[in-house]
Amino acid sequence: MRAAVTRPGRIEVTEVDDPVPASGHVLVRPLLCGICGSDLHAAQDLPRFADLSTQVGLPGGLDPDRGVVFGHEFCAEIVEHGPDTTGALAVGTRVCSVPTILGPTGPEALGYSNRYPGALGELMVLQEALLLPVPDGLSTELAALTEPLAVGEHAVGLARLTGDEVCLVIGCGPVGLAVIAALKAHGHGPVVAADFSPTRRRLAESVGADEVVDPAETSPYGRWDELGVPSNLLDRAAREMFGMAFKEAVIFEAVGVPGVLQAIVDGAPPRARIVVVGVCLEPDEIRPFFGVVKELEVRFAFGYTAAEFAATLDRLAAGQLAVGELVTDVVDLDGAPGAFATLASPGDHGKILVRHGG
Amino acid sequence: MRAAVTRPGRIEVTEVDDPVPASGHVLVRPLLCGICGSDLHAAQDLPRFADLSTQVGLPGGLDPDRGVVFGHEFCAEIVEHGPDTTGALAVGTRVCSVPTILGPTGPEALGYSNRYPGALGELMVLQEALLLPVPDGLSTELAALTEPLAVGEHAVGLARLTGDEVCLVIGCGPVGLAVIAALKAHGHGPVVAADFSPTRRRLAESVGADEVVDPAETSPYGRWDELGVPSNLLDRAAREMFGMAFKEAVIFEAVGVPGVLQAIVDGAPPRARIVVVGVCLEPDEIRPFFGVVKELEVRFAFGYTAAEFAATLDRLAAGQLAVGELVTDVVDLDGAPGAFATLASPGDHGKILVRHGG
Repeated sequence: MRAAVTRPGRIEVTEVDDPVPASGHVLVRPLLCGICGSDLHAAQDLPRFADLSTQVGLPGGLDPDRGVVFGHEFCAEIVEHGPDTTGALAVGTRVCSVPTILGPTGPEALGYSNRYPGALGELMVLQEALLLPVPDGLSTELAALTEPLAVGEHAVGLARLTGDEVCLVIGCGPVGLAVIAALKAHGHGPVVAADFSPTRRRLAESVGADEVVDPAETSPYGRWDELGVPSNLLDRAAREMFGMAFKEAVIFEAVGVPGVLQAIVDGAPPRARIVVVGVCLEPDEIRPFFGVVKELEVRFAFGYTAAEFAATLDRLAAGQLAVGELVTDVVDLDGAPGAFATLASPGDHGKILVRHGG
Repeated sequence: MRAAVTRPGRIEVTEVDDPVPASGHVLVRPLLCGICGSDLHAAQDLPRFADLSTQVGLPGGLDPDRGVVFGHEFCAEIVEHGPDTTGALAVGTRVCSVPTILGPTGPEALGYSNRYPGALGELMVLQEALLLPVPDGLSTELAALTEPLAVGEHAVGLARLTGDEVCLVIGCGPVGLAVIAALKAHGHGPVVAADFSPTRRRLAESVGADEVVDPAETSPYGRWDELGVPSNLLDRAAREMFGMAFKEAVIFEAVGVPGVLQAIVDGAPPRARIVVVGVCLEPDEIRPFFGVVKELEVRFAFGYTAAEFAATLDRLAAGQLAVGELVTDVVDLDGAPGAFATLASPGDHGKILVRHGG
């Protein structure tokens, strides 16, 4: 089959061996595959990414020189059932799946494994037990967004929202947009979203942000009091003492580059909850004293549960996620390397999908 | 009166003006005053401390050149009631108080204010409305520990413990010891405590640690699985999937120097909650990726509420806090500068108290 193969320093579309379904696997043909920020990070420095993955004990293990076929955000159709499968879903059924598969040495991360190609190949194998059929009426394009949107669902769950919060989303790339969509699907808000890119601010509005801010013009952290969140310790203490109503702040970090976390710590009001959804691979400097005095909570979020993934697919089918404009380009497989280059300076894009087979 | 006055680069015992109680204040004579880690940090670089305090909007404001009388951990006795007081507590009554006072421009932090000397002076003024009488039968020495122990009570509250946690306390100075004492008073555990100092490990045992670790010999992070906490992602996921019981990890950072937070992030099992109680004034480097993949929660803790302070005094009176050995030295006021020097390398000490009037 043909696949976009990433090796240190390059991505190229080339011929590779077809994957073969083993026990419990099905062979599928990816229809659409999203390019994820983590793919971009990994492509930028594959050896470092492989090294970090090993250090943190991620399943599988990745030899960068053997090459990897990315692609863990996908909608696919069943081509063939492997050994020891039930065949409950017929050939041709459109499916989604959490990007995990059970290999001979344990679970592996689809799209970050040497053994199992991701959806930037024309074929892939999936674990039958993890397949979710795409509901009739749900477009393949929206179904392919299940994975990145599940990240938003998960981050919102970790924020433990009660309804009395002002939500600020820093960064309106696909992760930030997924967070905004999930917040609105759950009825939370107001949601203020900040991004330097006018395209991304427009996308933030399309997924439901109540307000968007251009940080080049207005600080996203300047309006806490106006929004009902006490911005200084004394004011907060006074309101607590006299039983006056006030709101809490929840800030989602959806940028993932060094310096953003400290900017949030500096701009956060006392007792803010910070949910870190952006994946920063570089070391970062923080000034803990400011976190201490404000008693901030920093919650790192990663991935989602299988239940959150399934719930996200259901929400998409029910029309509860306003993500119709999230996809800003669709390219064919030969366009995948160019899409990686485009997304290296991503300001003009939401999600780019790769379509197989025209 | 005589007082230990701190100015940039020096602490000296000298004669200063007696404080004068204003409306709502009482004049008290401190009996015992603890030296706090924050005092040590502040004395080390008073201008920086003043600057940081201003930046974070701490009440009051501190001009380092005017000098400051530290001392916010104290037991005192009432000398005189100022104007507009009720006199509900008689002259001679032993009292504790949260170290806050209402000045002409708003609340100020007792012990970090140019206007209001702390308990390292022979006299101080307190807010009558905040006074708590020391219960009969509770020693002045234990009562003077109310403030630092309330810090432990607060940190334990922020950890949202349910009883299914293994608690690890990194650093067994007064803050770590306060955390351990509070954990045990609430019936939590097992509590594992780590410190390089044999004295502090012994103190950790005296306040109730179930186990102590010398990090020079044994990693405090090496026994999660043995303690029932899954130390890797896959094992945790498998236990969740099959509904198997497991424990969560809660790690208290009670050191407050750069590098410790990342060491905890590296050693923490997935989903650990980290409560940062140590006050690190320097910038610190973290590697967010490791926090992300493990989905850690970092909760910064600062101070306590008035209710937690009062509850701590009650617990002390009820004998629920095993802190009888926490004080390792008592010096007179002339010995205070020497005690600051001793505590600059604190390994052999728990809490040092300053006693007034012999």
